[in-house]
Amino acid sequence: MSATTDISSRGSAAARALRSADTDLRDAALQAIATELEQNAAAILAANSEDVAAAVASNTAASLVDRLTLNDERLAALAQSVRDIAALPDPVGRVIEDRRLHNGLELSKVCVPIGRVLVVYESRPNVTVDVAALCIKSGNVALLRGSAAAGRSNAVLGDTVRAGLVAVGLPADVVISIEGSRDDLGELVSDASTADIVVPRGGEALKDFLLEKSRIPVLAAAGGICHVYLDRDADAEMAVSITMNAKVQRPGVCNAAETLLVHADRTDLLQPVLSTLRDAGVELRGDERTRAAIDFEINAATDADWDAEYLDLILAVRVVDDLDAALDHIDLHSTGHSEAIVTDSLEASHAFTDGVDSACVYVNASTRFTDGGEYGMGAEVGNSTARLHVRGPIGLEALTTTKYVVIGTGQTRG
Amino acid sequence: MSATTDISSRGSAAARALRSADTDLRDAALQAIATELEQNAAAILAANSEDVAAAVASNTAASLVDRLTLNDERLAALAQSVRDIAALPDPVGRVIEDRRLHNGLELSKVCVPIGRVLVVYESRPNVTVDVAALCIKSGNVALLRGSAAAGRSNAVLGDTVRAGLVAVGLPADVVISIEGSRDDLGELVSDASTADIVVPRGGEALKDFLLEKSRIPVLAAAGGICHVYLDRDADAEMAVSITMNAKVQRPGVCNAAETLLVHADRTDLLQPVLSTLRDAGVELRGDERTRAAIDFEINAATDADWDAEYLDLILAVRVVDDLDAALDHIDLHSTGHSEAIVTDSLEASHAFTDGVDSACVYVNASTRFTDGGEYGMGAEVGNSTARLHVRGPIGLEALTTTKYVVIGTGQTRG
Repeated sequence: MSATTDISSRGSAAARALRSADTDLRDAALQAIATELEQNAAAILAANSEDVAAAVASNTAASLVDRLTLNDERLAALAQSVRDIAALPDPVGRVIEDRRLHNGLELSKVCVPIGRVLVVYESRPNVTVDVAALCIKSGNVALLRGSAAAGRSNAVLGDTVRAGLVAVGLPADVVISIEGSRDDLGELVSDASTADIVVPRGGEALKDFLLEKSRIPVLAAAGGICHVYLDRDADAEMAVSITMNAKVQRPGVCNAAETLLVHADRTDLLQPVLSTLRDAGVELRGDERTRAAIDFEINAATDADWDAEYLDLILAVRVVDDLDAALDHIDLHSTGHSEAIVTDSLEASHAFTDGVDSACVYVNASTRFTDGGEYGMGAEVGNSTARLHVRGPIGLEALTTTKYVVIGTGQTRG
Repeated sequence: MSATTDISSRGSAAARALRSADTDLRDAALQAIATELEQNAAAILAANSEDVAAAVASNTAASLVDRLTLNDERLAALAQSVRDIAALPDPVGRVIEDRRLHNGLELSKVCVPIGRVLVVYESRPNVTVDVAALCIKSGNVALLRGSAAAGRSNAVLGDTVRAGLVAVGLPADVVISIEGSRDDLGELVSDASTADIVVPRGGEALKDFLLEKSRIPVLAAAGGICHVYLDRDADAEMAVSITMNAKVQRPGVCNAAETLLVHADRTDLLQPVLSTLRDAGVELRGDERTRAAIDFEINAATDADWDAEYLDLILAVRVVDDLDAALDHIDLHSTGHSEAIVTDSLEASHAFTDGVDSACVYVNASTRFTDGGEYGMGAEVGNSTARLHVRGPIGLEALTTTKYVVIGTGQTRG
């Protein structure tokens, strides 16, 4: 039996066992896992310090070493996050529709687990536990393929999670750890029977690799080239605070703004907004009209800037003729993640929310709110800019599919 | 500009124009299309008779020639189906969730069109009009790639649909007809910017081709190996009527039953059920226990029969030890389409609906009910056995995605 066939059949068997695990049992498994994480702390931290030492020895960037590192505090937070997931409402069994058809059939549409969720992720070992917990909560088998850099940590964390599962009588194979090279991964996902869905959590290269190789449906997120548009009727204070927050509060994430658009009648906003950004250390790149409207020098924007996801303290700035021109710009350059308008006009607000075709559209609020936690969805698996199945924050609900249950009294079709 | 780039940009422009088309305008377009179909009947039937003549000349099977053929009656039904789609509720703009977050943000999740829907279909020319109407109703651009066999019919039908669009002031490019070879199609779908979704409506070969070549998400349907299970507590009359209906009423469709499973304590049901099927012309293929339980000869089932989608008057029959064994069999051999149990036991009913992991699960009703029309969804695009986005009948709702609209008063993230 090949490794791929083995994973397919182990996962299927575990998925079947999980189908009969009720809410209480799945939540008990999560509580047991949290306890195991605490009891197994010494072994987890020992394995992690080996990964960290190897990363340091191979001159890994400090920021990546930090992402790789676990300590007592982070481990306690991880156990707590598992308990938080246990406390969320069960996404399984929710009845979405329930009606009686003309012929007396009772039709209901019920949320059920997707089945087997393959997640491919990069260095942070806490993802191993987060994803396992989200999958268990939603009744799914988790196939976890972490990075080699976190290999020792992930192995011990995987064993710890499995110990929690077994403690409540669930199969260890509810969480299957997958190792191997990038080529092995390509082979694994080329077989549609391996899993029911694959989620890349990592850079664009990983996402493109999976979109190219996978016969399993890929739930992918594109990067975020997010826009803030200051309308003719923008409030000056909000213009500053929202642009600042969207750009500066955490520039390295996908819901941070990359481009500022300003209505041609409101170039007066550019001086206060851009000087505040400059003082916060933001590199500004403006078009001609922008550079003419302020009393300090900034770099000239090139065409490439409108399509750049900086993920850094850099902002492209452009003056547009009107709201329609802003919509045209966004239509051409947005990745469909999050866009915001600052305006006091109800008409402009409606034109923007109707006209912008992105996962999340904001009026007088920062793009930074695009987040499962902020949206009140509890934990999230990521943020989808895809158009099928889920768009925006990927919460527990997106780890379910539906089943029609139809109860009759002998009906046949005429 | 290559053909692919051209289709991508034309479709995008039309999708943008369609975003501002309200319910009334889209419905008016459908009414105009129905009128155009009636007024253009002579040209449509003339083009169709050329397709039919060419098909007959090349010795096409009579059943395929029939599917290809239009006449006055079928054309009138087609115009009526467009008016029926116009009368359905608008799937666009429906608010799925609406709540106020702790920080005062007003969040709503709204249904919006997917964008550009590429449908690849085989010989029936009426699909051109059906799919165009469903797309227009749901605010989507339709990219239509029909078969060469219906080329002349599809060309005139496409022009007729576009005349209706233009009559109400919508762009003709809301419905784009695509021609070319299978290789051209492969090239088209290898570019993710061509469309937002591709739906194959045809055989397994077409589906596999698209799953292999497409970088556009594929909304695919697997074939239906549907099961009827007669439980220990099955009503004898229902056992006969439901099995008969599921197998015989229309054997060539995906929701027809292909395998009958019978509880070992109820082999008494086999004589009445199987003799009725035999009298209706069904070829029966049974396992040993089945063949021993009846007073006439039937063929022996082989292992291949449990995985066969006959789409014909053939039925595989197996005696299983109990309900769990029936679930095991279904788990191994079902394509996840539709399965039915016949039982008077509430416990068995629950065990079956919980334990069967298929799109549609029936208790005391025929599998033949899996259908958008029967489910009260109006028209359907097909039936999905996929687990993402939509599972079961693909109605208008499945041609939409969602957008979060978030209204604030200056909120920024802390």
